[in-house]
Amino acid sequence: MRVLGVDPGLVATGYGLVERVAGRWQVVACGTVRPQGKELGERLLELQRLFSPLFGQLCPQVVALEDLYSSYQHPRTAILMGHARGVVCLEAARAGLLVVSYSPSQVKRAVVGTGRATKTQVACMVATRLGPFSPTPDEHGWDALALAVCHLSRDGQRRLSWSTHDRTP
Amino acid sequence: MRVLGVDPGLVATGYGLVERVAGRWQVVACGTVRPQGKELGERLLELQRLFSPLFGQLCPQVVALEDLYSSYQHPRTAILMGHARGVVCLEAARAGLLVVSYSPSQVKRAVVGTGRATKTQVACMVATRLGPFSPTPDEHGWDALALAVCHLSRDGQRRLSWSTHDRTP
Repeated sequence: MRVLGVDPGLVATGYGLVERVAGRWQVVACGTVRPQGKELGERLLELQRLFSPLFGQLCPQVVALEDLYSSYQHPRTAILMGHARGVVCLEAARAGLLVVSYSPSQVKRAVVGTGRATKTQVACMVATRLGPFSPTPDEHGWDALALAVCHLSRDGQRRLSWSTHDRTP
Repeated sequence: MRVLGVDPGLVATGYGLVERVAGRWQVVACGTVRPQGKELGERLLELQRLFSPLFGQLCPQVVALEDLYSSYQHPRTAILMGHARGVVCLEAARAGLLVVSYSPSQVKRAVVGTGRATKTQVACMVATRLGPFSPTPDEHGWDALALAVCHLSRDGQRRLSWSTHDRTP
């Protein structure tokens, strides 16, 4: 199974594709795209142009995102993120991909074992689980990989908050 | 000048194109599109498919939206609206259109004269200003028309919260 974790944002959007083959997990691709446009519309267009080809190139079976409502404490950031998340969901739907989402505490529990883990603990556990790969991701890449690892860890017991299609990978 | 007001949402997205010719304002088109998809990605894709041709058919010079941060009291609605707004901004940027935004109180002040006007007062004043047209809009159509009227009323004195291009219409 190939799972693409995505951490959408207008400043930086992280992605990480993790493949599980015969019980072994490996990072196929990981990176962060940074739209440079000065205005909102330009950034969204750039994000679409950068992201749309990734679905075709990486051939994920599932796209894993963070839950819709996990940024209540920062409404401005959350609403702006909503714009970027909308573009990622749009492109995933166009590619016919299953989209799943997990709350930050679900990711932490699945990766570290406790919903109160720090970001550093999550990144370290993801690195341990996936073994060496390069280049070293930035924080957005780690967050994206953690989402992919979360989905793979929970496979078979996961709860879909929403999906683009009612089908399982 | 042709101004397209848009009230984006995942359940209903209202639009209204108002044209000003020789000091007279008229409604060129007004309506509400209602994506039917069961899932978020499907709805966004449907919204894009419904909305993208409108820019080509209606040839607006400006797209007027509600400000990004005016729905703090309903964060869930605001974040979901952010997804739909992202698609509208994306399509406007693709069409190379200027996008402007106004807060609800700016719209009320521009249309009725007071920032505390009710929705009904705004709709009545928009109807008075634009004269008879059919079909009668629903609330989303009225909101969209009010945004267009707001932009035309403030022309020359407006403040751009953001735009897709640094150019004036």
